[in-house]
Amino acid sequence: MSSKEEVRGKFVDEFPELVEELKDVLRKYGMPAEAITWFEKNLNYNTPGGKLNRGLSVVDTYAILKNYKSVNDLSKDEYRKVAVLGWCIELLQAYFLVADDMMDKSITRRGQPCWYKVKDVGEIAINDAFMLEAAIYELLKKYFKGQSYYIDLIELFHEVTFQTEMGQLLDLITAPEDKVDLSKFSLAKHSFIVIFKTAYYSFYLPVALAMYMAGITDAKDLKQAQDVLIPLGEYFQIQDDYLDCFGTPEQIGKIGTDIQDNKCSWIINKALELATPEQRKVLDENYGRKDSVMEARCKKIFVDMKLDEHYHEYEEKVATELKAKIAKIDESRGFKGEVLTAFLNKVYKRSK
Amino acid sequence: MSSKEEVRGKFVDEFPELVEELKDVLRKYGMPAEAITWFEKNLNYNTPGGKLNRGLSVVDTYAILKNYKSVNDLSKDEYRKVAVLGWCIELLQAYFLVADDMMDKSITRRGQPCWYKVKDVGEIAINDAFMLEAAIYELLKKYFKGQSYYIDLIELFHEVTFQTEMGQLLDLITAPEDKVDLSKFSLAKHSFIVIFKTAYYSFYLPVALAMYMAGITDAKDLKQAQDVLIPLGEYFQIQDDYLDCFGTPEQIGKIGTDIQDNKCSWIINKALELATPEQRKVLDENYGRKDSVMEARCKKIFVDMKLDEHYHEYEEKVATELKAKIAKIDESRGFKGEVLTAFLNKVYKRSK
Ligand SMILES: [Mg+2]
Ligand SMILES: [Mg+2]
Ligand SMILES: [Mg+2]
Ligand SMILES: [Mg+2]
Ligand SMILES: [Mg+2]
Ligand SMILES: [Mg+2]
Repeated sequence: MSSKEEVRGKFVDEFPELVEELKDVLRKYGMPAEAITWFEKNLNYNTPGGKLNRGLSVVDTYAILKNYKSVNDLSKDEYRKVAVLGWCIELLQAYFLVADDMMDKSITRRGQPCWYKVKDVGEIAINDAFMLEAAIYELLKKYFKGQSYYIDLIELFHEVTFQTEMGQLLDLITAPEDKVDLSKFSLAKHSFIVIFKTAYYSFYLPVALAMYMAGITDAKDLKQAQDVLIPLGEYFQIQDDYLDCFGTPEQIGKIGTDIQDNKCSWIINKALELATPEQRKVLDENYGRKDSVMEARCKKIFVDMKLDEHYHEYEEKVATELKAKIAKIDESRGFKGEVLTAFLNKVYKRSK
Repeated sequence: MSSKEEVRGKFVDEFPELVEELKDVLRKYGMPAEAITWFEKNLNYNTPGGKLNRGLSVVDTYAILKNYKSVNDLSKDEYRKVAVLGWCIELLQAYFLVADDMMDKSITRRGQPCWYKVKDVGEIAINDAFMLEAAIYELLKKYFKGQSYYIDLIELFHEVTFQTEMGQLLDLITAPEDKVDLSKFSLAKHSFIVIFKTAYYSFYLPVALAMYMAGITDAKDLKQAQDVLIPLGEYFQIQDDYLDCFGTPEQIGKIGTDIQDNKCSWIINKALELATPEQRKVLDENYGRKDSVMEARCKKIFVDMKLDEHYHEYEEKVATELKAKIAKIDESRGFKGEVLTAFLNKVYKRSK
C-alpha cells in the first residue's frame, strides 16, 4: 500500500492537466487571453489547497470496490477517470465555498484571503463560482459521455448540488450573523441543515460516484450506502460543532468562533433543549454577539450543562448504530461494508 | 391566430403550477416551511415580470416547426412541455440577472428593487441564484426524463450557461465600472462579449430547445439555426447599444447610461476605431465617469463622427446578409427558414 502522501500526491498531480483541458474549451471558443488567464487563476486558487478528503474518497472507495490493493494497480486511464470524479467534487466544493465566504463575509480560507477579497476580484467572484460549477459538467462530458452511467453522474451532481443549496438556504435564514433569534433554532432544523449542507456532498456523493464507475448501481446498494453515510455525515458535523466549543486550539488548529458567529450548531441547539428559563435568558441575551465576555457566559452554561458528556453519549450511540448497520450490509451485488468502515474510522473519535 | 396577449397569458398561466411542483421537491425532503416560502418568493420575484421573449420564442418556434396555426392547437400535455422549456430559459435568465445585478451594484430591475436589495435578502441572493439554476434541471428531469433527447437538453443548457458565463467574465474584466481603461476595448472583444453573454442564451437556445422537442435534431439543422441566430443576436445587442446613445427616452423607455457606466458598447468601440488622437484623448478623459458634463463631451464626439449613420449602414448590411442566409435554408429535414424570419422581424428596425 502506498503512503498517504503518495496517494494524495498522485491525485494532486492530475489537476494541472484538467486545468489545461478546461482552458482548451475557452481557447476553442476564441476567448481573449486575459479571460483565459483569469479562469485559470480562479481554478487554481479555489480548487486545490484544502484537505481534498472528498476527492480522495472517490479514489479510495473505487479501489476497495474493485479489489485493488493500491491505487497504483489502476491503469493510467482508469486512474484518470476516477480522479476526474474526485476533482469534480472538489470543484463543487470550490463553487460552494467561494459563494459561502461572500455570504458569510469571511476574510480568509485555507490560510489565504477569500477569493472575493483578492485584489480586482470582488463581486466577480459570483460569476467565478458559476464557472467552477460549469467546469464539472465539461469534465463529465469529456470523460464519461458514452458511458451508460453518464446521465446518472449528471443527475447525481444536480441532485446533490440542489440539496446542498437547500441546506445552505435554511442555514442562512435560520442563523443570520447580524440578527440573533434563538427561537428559530431547533435540533430538528440543525439536523436538516447539516444533512443537506454537508452530508450529501461530503459523504454520500464520493461513494455514489465511485459506485457508478465500479458498476455497482443497484438502487438497493445506493440506498445501503446512503443509509450509513448520511447519519455519518451528520455525526461528523456534530463532532465539528462539539470541537469548536470543547476542543483545545491545539486540537482543532484554530479558535472556535461559533458562539460569536451565531452559528446554528449542535451545541446551542442541545443547550436550548436542556436550558432552565434562567439559562435560556442568558443565552438569548449573550449568544451570537461579537463580544468575548458574552461568549464566556454562554460557554459557562454549556460547561454547566455538561454538553461534552451529552456529546460523548451521542457519539457512542451513533457509532454503535452505524457499526451494526455496516455489519448487516448485503454484499451480494458487489457493494462492500469496508467502504463504509473506512469512512467511519476517519470520523470516530477524531480530535481534529 | 390568437392575439399576442392571449399567447403571453397562456404561457404565464403555466408558471404557478411549476412553482408548486418545485416546492413539492422541497416538501418531499421535509424542508421547514419558512425555507419553502423563501424559495417560492425567490422564484416568483425573479422569474416572471420581464418581457418573456425568450420563453415565448420556444413556444412560437415549436408551433411553426410542427405546422400548428395557433398555440391553441397543441394538446394540453404538449403545450405544458414546450412551456416548461420556455420557463427553463426564463429561470436561466433569472439566475444570470440576480447575479448580474449584484456584480453591477444595480438598484432596480423591471421596476422593482433588485432581489439582493430586498429587505433581509442581501448576499443570500447568491444562493438564491444557484437555486434558480437548480430548478431548471429539476423541471427537465420531471418533464423530459425518458425522452431520447433528454441528455441533449441537459447538455445544451450546460453549454449555453457556460458560454454566457464566459461572456459575462470578459465583460466584467474588460469594463469594470470603477476603472476606465479604453485600451482594453476593441470591436473584436465587443463581438465576443455580446455573442457569449447574450446571443447564445437569448437567440440560439430558444430555437434549439424547440427543435429538440420537435424532433429536428440533425447537427446540420442546429448549425443552420446557429449560423443565423448568433449574428442576429449580435445585431440585436449592437442595436441596443445604439439606442442607449441615440434613442430618445420615449423610444427606449429609459435614459441611456452606457457612457457613464463605462460600458463596452458598440458605440464606444466604433468610436475608438474612428477617433483622431484629439478625440481619443477626450474619450480617455471623459468616458465612464459619473458626470453628465463629461458624458455630454463623449456624446458630442459620437454625433460628430456620425455613429448613427455608421450604425444604419451596419444594420442594413447585416439584415441583408441574414435575409440571404435565411433564403438559402435547407428545409429538407424539416427545419424552416420561417422560424428565423420571425426572429429577424422582431429585431429589424426595432425602435425599442
Ligand atoms: Mg462560511
Ligand atoms: Mg455559511
Ligand atoms: Mg465548525
Ligand atoms: Mg447589469
Ligand atoms: Mg453586467
Ligand atoms: Mg443596453
